[in-house]
Amino acid sequence: MTAIKNKDNKNEQNESEHQQAGAKRPDLPTYRAEEVSQHNNERSFWVTYKQGVYDVTSFLPSHPGGEQIYNAAGLSVEPFWNVYGMHKTKEIYELLESYRIGNLHEDDLVDHSDEEMWAKEPFRDRRLCVKTARPFNAETPPAEQAEGDGGGRGAGWGEGAADRTVLRGTEQVPEEGGAGGAHVCRKQEVGDERVKPVKGLSWRTGAIGNAVWGGVLLRDVLLAAGVNQEDTDGKHVTLMGADMDATGTYFSTSIPLSHALDERARVLLATSMNGAPLTKDHGHPLRVVVPGAPAVRSVKWLQCIKVSSEESPSHWHQRDYRSFGPSVSWETADFPSAPPVYSLPVTSAVCSPEDGDTVRPHKGALHVQGYAYSGGGAKIVRVEVSTDRGATWREARLRSDSAPPREHYSWTLWDVDLPASGPQMEIWVKATDSNFNSQPENFRDIWNIRGILSNAYHKIKVNVQQ
Amino acid sequence: MTAIKNKDNKNEQNESEHQQAGAKRPDLPTYRAEEVSQHNNERSFWVTYKQGVYDVTSFLPSHPGGEQIYNAAGLSVEPFWNVYGMHKTKEIYELLESYRIGNLHEDDLVDHSDEEMWAKEPFRDRRLCVKTARPFNAETPPAEQAEGDGGGRGAGWGEGAADRTVLRGTEQVPEEGGAGGAHVCRKQEVGDERVKPVKGLSWRTGAIGNAVWGGVLLRDVLLAAGVNQEDTDGKHVTLMGADMDATGTYFSTSIPLSHALDERARVLLATSMNGAPLTKDHGHPLRVVVPGAPAVRSVKWLQCIKVSSEESPSHWHQRDYRSFGPSVSWETADFPSAPPVYSLPVTSAVCSPEDGDTVRPHKGALHVQGYAYSGGGAKIVRVEVSTDRGATWREARLRSDSAPPREHYSWTLWDVDLPASGPQMEIWVKATDSNFNSQPENFRDIWNIRGILSNAYHKIKVNVQQ
Repeated sequence: MTAIKNKDNKNEQNESEHQQAGAKRPDLPTYRAEEVSQHNNERSFWVTYKQGVYDVTSFLPSHPGGEQIYNAAGLSVEPFWNVYGMHKTKEIYELLESYRIGNLHEDDLVDHSDEEMWAKEPFRDRRLCVKTARPFNAETPPAEQAEGDGGGRGAGWGEGAADRTVLRGTEQVPEEGGAGGAHVCRKQEVGDERVKPVKGLSWRTGAIGNAVWGGVLLRDVLLAAGVNQEDTDGKHVTLMGADMDATGTYFSTSIPLSHALDERARVLLATSMNGAPLTKDHGHPLRVVVPGAPAVRSVKWLQCIKVSSEESPSHWHQRDYRSFGPSVSWETADFPSAPPVYSLPVTSAVCSPEDGDTVRPHKGALHVQGYAYSGGGAKIVRVEVSTDRGATWREARLRSDSAPPREHYSWTLWDVDLPASGPQMEIWVKATDSNFNSQPENFRDIWNIRGILSNAYHKIKVNVQQ
Repeated sequence: MTAIKNKDNKNEQNESEHQQAGAKRPDLPTYRAEEVSQHNNERSFWVTYKQGVYDVTSFLPSHPGGEQIYNAAGLSVEPFWNVYGMHKTKEIYELLESYRIGNLHEDDLVDHSDEEMWAKEPFRDRRLCVKTARPFNAETPPAEQAEGDGGGRGAGWGEGAADRTVLRGTEQVPEEGGAGGAHVCRKQEVGDERVKPVKGLSWRTGAIGNAVWGGVLLRDVLLAAGVNQEDTDGKHVTLMGADMDATGTYFSTSIPLSHALDERARVLLATSMNGAPLTKDHGHPLRVVVPGAPAVRSVKWLQCIKVSSEESPSHWHQRDYRSFGPSVSWETADFPSAPPVYSLPVTSAVCSPEDGDTVRPHKGALHVQGYAYSGGGAKIVRVEVSTDRGATWREARLRSDSAPPREHYSWTLWDVDLPASGPQMEIWVKATDSNFNSQPENFRDIWNIRGILSNAYHKIKVNVQQ
């Protein structure tokens, strides 16, 4: 089978639409910067973007970043968006323009170009699918994943999310006291699954990788430091990185102490990745790897470990990666009472072909490849593929490492040959793990405001050449 | 709200239909017992039941009990069915009659009444919903479960399944080195969910309970006996009970050694239940409790523990409680390569009202109660209920013990008030656990030949009095 790439490049489309936001609107009044700066509180809250002036007072309660928005009170959002590049999407530019009230006086325009702060960015693999350039958020190309080397090319972080890498089993790094673990950041599915808009980066199937990590177990460090493993109730380990946001706050999150001390959880302080020292993008010189948890817990550039009777108070820990049901909106979301996500559900994806591809069958068959994964140490025991919308299922061949269930932290690659039928085929995949959990069919019933934990069946459509 | 019970009593219906099986059929030929006894091999395999003669040769490959059926070659099935009472269902009597070829000569009829072997049966709570009387298999009435005391009234075993009890948290029995754990045997849903017939007892929502167990950890016993916890790869712990089947074979199953030694798994050798010594039905004097695993692993009347390089070779271990996908039939099922079930997926049920009940709203609301559960130590973090077939969901209040995620083995009780609408309401429930796994909507995609692990949404219909 030969895959012919889907032609439309959504990144390019977005780029041209970005140009519209903040452009001069002759039909609206002009304001001086001084006047804008006085609208700096919750009763009246204005911001600027390029030449645009916006009254976003009514938007304040639903800002996904919470009170961070007050840093831009009466000012331009550009210095902040240059740090939090995930704002730079078509959806957010359109949302911003819906609050447009005027134009900034031309004498008050400031160039917020961000060349300087990113001067030390490292070289990155050109094959990466870039989600945001600054900070750098990227996915591994799905076809590369299916080939099985998918080793952690994704890099950078935004919103507190660490990189997109996932690790292989524990037995591969015994000489370093290594750990297995997986970081899955598939936040949002696209197409049929998108039932209501969510707020977050549009991560797709490439937001996962698989690597071998070396280092020392966090458990060993904590025990050597005198932490009492019989006294873990209600205690947490706060992990702080050296990366700082626009307000001067260091990134931080936490995991339960009982999780950190669990031998089978194998939480690692990592110094190497795939046998080489950590690169900058992957957290050099020291990072955390929390197997089976979302990547946000695997703090890079680690500078402080603290045992505490409370979870990390940081914005990234308190206001992100918590689980809500479909009945909760941004207006009703109560973050402190929502469960933090320390473990990921069973999921799977088709990596090759990709959605929208045109494929040529080989001897009447399509060769289909992908990955499956489950957090919390669960092992994938079965992957099934359907071409008749779930009426019948075919089992895929599995390739996974030999770690046993309950401490299995790597992904499982799968492949299957499907009888080709044309002109269009719809392919569904679902996985079952060693706790015999399987995936929900539809995104609808697991929809949540941030679009995280979107483990509904992966469904793609391909065109079949006759 | 007052629940008015659904009137039709299916047990009584079944009993009258049972009377038809094995009755004389004047339209068919008559055979002597000696002739029947010659059809005792896979080329020609006859059995008798009461006055019926049956040629079941073509059924042999699909007998759920495998080669056990050869014990009845050319003979009456009655002595065996008296031990394996789960055969005594309407479906199996009908299946048997479909193989009818004649009548047994009246001079050869034998009375297989089974009074003697059950003379020592203990007293049981009369509120239990009896599935099979001999051996005794029963469920807790759902309404009793919802009241929260649901403490392990289910008892007896069949097919190697242990009792239906589930246990509360670990912290409640510290003085006894107690363990938490849960045994869930919801094998099969009924109604809309039943997409293809399965083979097994028709367990419903009552096949679960919750109790506090006391005893010693299997881990401690194994370590005291010198088992090396650094050498667990590919090793298993075989657990043999003192109960014997009709062929003189003791019941046995096994769990992986790594599972038995895992501190957090808290596998228990139990001597007490809810603070009292074990009763006969619950495994007196000693039984195993494997938290989070199906009850079949929690061997009663324990007489032997063996560390082995192989799983238990017993029929119950090799030919039952293995996981198959919907594409596998009895004819294609390869039991040795199928994963044994050592952990249960997230599930939930409505206990009150029950399906088919007529309910009276109180101040315009229905009070709905039930349980939710997940194996493998996962804790229930959310239960949601829908009355519009999944379009919107309402969160239920939860009551669970304080054991943390990763070692939470008790059930979670829930309740919710739903705005009443008439004349009929359909109620769906689903749960989410601390790994953020949720339930599949439909039974179709998780259908399997034995009907086990049926954790699709529980869906009931009730009639609402205006």
